[in-house]
Amino acid sequence: MRREPLGSGAALADAAAGLLERVRGRRPRVHCITNSAAQVLTANLLLAAGAIPSLTIAPDEIEAFVGRADGLLVNLGTLDADRRASIPLAMAVAQARGAPVVLDPVFVEASPVRLAVARDCLARGPDIVRCNGAELAALSPGGDAMAFAGEARCVVAVTGAIDTISDGKRSLRIANGHPLMASVTAMGCAGAALIAAFAALEQDRLTAATAALAVLGVAGEIAGERAGGPGTFPALVLDALAALDAEDLRTRIHLA
Amino acid sequence: MRREPLGSGAALADAAAGLLERVRGRRPRVHCITNSAAQVLTANLLLAAGAIPSLTIAPDEIEAFVGRADGLLVNLGTLDADRRASIPLAMAVAQARGAPVVLDPVFVEASPVRLAVARDCLARGPDIVRCNGAELAALSPGGDAMAFAGEARCVVAVTGAIDTISDGKRSLRIANGHPLMASVTAMGCAGAALIAAFAALEQDRLTAATAALAVLGVAGEIAGERAGGPGTFPALVLDALAALDAEDLRTRIHLA
Amino acid sequence: MRREPLGSGAALADAAAGLLERVRGRRPRVHCITNSAAQVLTANLLLAAGAIPSLTIAPDEIEAFVGRADGLLVNLGTLDADRRASIPLAMAVAQARGAPVVLDPVFVEASPVRLAVARDCLARGPDIVRCNGAELAALSPGGDAMAFAGEARCVVAVTGAIDTISDGKRSLRIANGHPLMASVTAMGCAGAALIAAFAALEQDRLTAATAALAVLGVAGEIAGERAGGPGTFPALVLDALAALDAEDLRTRIHLA
Repeated sequence: MRREPLGSGAALADAAAGLLERVRGRRPRVHCITNSAAQVLTANLLLAAGAIPSLTIAPDEIEAFVGRADGLLVNLGTLDADRRASIPLAMAVAQARGAPVVLDPVFVEASPVRLAVARDCLARGPDIVRCNGAELAALSPGGDAMAFAGEARCVVAVTGAIDTISDGKRSLRIANGHPLMASVTAMGCAGAALIAAFAALEQDRLTAATAALAVLGVAGEIAGERAGGPGTFPALVLDALAALDAEDLRTRIHLA
Repeated sequence: MRREPLGSGAALADAAAGLLERVRGRRPRVHCITNSAAQVLTANLLLAAGAIPSLTIAPDEIEAFVGRADGLLVNLGTLDADRRASIPLAMAVAQARGAPVVLDPVFVEASPVRLAVARDCLARGPDIVRCNGAELAALSPGGDAMAFAGEARCVVAVTGAIDTISDGKRSLRIANGHPLMASVTAMGCAGAALIAAFAALEQDRLTAATAALAVLGVAGEIAGERAGGPGTFPALVLDALAALDAEDLRTRIHLA
Repeated sequence: MRREPLGSGAALADAAAGLLERVRGRRPRVHCITNSAAQVLTANLLLAAGAIPSLTIAPDEIEAFVGRADGLLVNLGTLDADRRASIPLAMAVAQARGAPVVLDPVFVEASPVRLAVARDCLARGPDIVRCNGAELAALSPGGDAMAFAGEARCVVAVTGAIDTISDGKRSLRIANGHPLMASVTAMGCAGAALIAAFAALEQDRLTAATAALAVLGVAGEIAGERAGGPGTFPALVLDALAALDAEDLRTRIHLA
């Protein structure tokens, strides 16, 4: 038995490969309340990983859809009235089912309205928060992932050149990925959906979030080696993700 | 004169090639009330086939747009208040113009609200219903395309590894396509729009629906031979569709 | 000092190369109220050029987002209640900040409601209008770019096989681009966002609009030489745009 299961790149690669196989085999449903610019890439990334996406945001349908889902993504981009009304309904259904909730507080630093919605979501107890550095700073003045994870009592995954994932006690830092991932819209949003798919099949939220981001980072690296630029890059990320095997993960994953 | 015009792959290939040429030459307008994750692929697939898409869902503009259209697609994905209000208005205008209406009851098995909207749409008399097996089973307990076509008094096209198209009296089964078509979001939705484009120029709805799905299936096969995975696949479907010729259809179309 | 700075292809190429470098270096924020089918391509085109997109349309968040933006795009496609409510709020904030406003009156010829919204937007004084020939004819009966620019007191950019850009006194005609640009949805919409990014860093609106369309036209030409059809084309436009250098612009830009 390992006390620090993800303490090395090799251990993380094994966990990630195992989880990716489970996603491909069990095909978890992930319902995504996500912004209109992220819906297609998010759905296709989930499909490329083996999961099954749904995207409805209508308040009178959301409970039926989340009631069939194994995981829920709540992304605050393009936050309109339907999305705002549906989010608490969706979170309640997911939590009643024991399905993990991933919160992605997109551009929360840009709008007081959105910051208030994000705080309301945090009060409802998401399992995992995925954000970037600017969003983290808006939510937690110190801008420290581990401190915010402790405050929010959930796993926090802060993505960037280095991804930092913390549950408030431990922190892991992944050095995978490719600069083009920041040059296309919605790659981070889609990554948060992948975290939800992994968390649907893994109770340890730190493991799920770290493995999902490591898998996406490796797919991004492979795609970055093949892409002619930011246009051709996203499709190649999906191709790489669909073809990824344990050997790719073992040779490529490395912690920072 | 052929009594069974599509009774062989060769006859279907001839019909499909002829219809594709007409779409390219006459450029029918197809108005699409479709889900937010399908809009881009749907518009680009119609353009690649030679048709002209429009996508507005606003209730106070829908009649003006459908009043210029040669065909209408009603897709029930991401079914919000605007879409629900616009659907009956759009169907009435299309029917008054004699423009064919294609109904795509996406995820109708997942939500009672959506099932009720689908039943309302069916009562308004669409020309063609495009669905998958789970959606068919939700709409018609036996899950039989020919029986449902008889009940609904329209052509029913059930897509999957084999596509089955029936008008309630005859059924055709197409064995074209590629497994990657099920690995990307909105390919089936876009196929329903292609059916609307073909039906805009062909009164025989069974011929129109079968030809459109055969054309898409062949484009999917060609793309599948070239794609590196689900990411690069959709763009290659559009490339293949735009370049498709009668010879491709004759050598590749086959009935199941 | 040049009296007619863009009077030759070489002068335009220099201006365009200089502006592209400034966009890459200063990374202007462009807020885009744009149609749901254009959001992804628009965001990715801005990112490929070096600018930073945001896409929110919620009326109670729009002022916060535009209050951080260096340019604003108002595209009238998929014109729903949120978009209509947000447009005047967004234009007021942009104008108070001195951020340029680009209006793209998509399909204004198709709907009286939309024509009224477009006229209202024009009365609020956008800096630049980007449209195609049919949209121009709906807004200005003569269908003449220079006359409409004079009436509307703004720069008018009419895109097509030849792009015509006028400020009411001078007109420039660009002969770059590729036929595939008309075969994919939202390429013109995305081009209007690029105009906003260039105008954010260039007070001369005629120069900004002309340079942006020349840059996009050259990227389109390069992509058109590489693409296998309309499917693979848009991603290659983004790749070409991200890699474009002054030499590409000098050898390729030519006025009509």
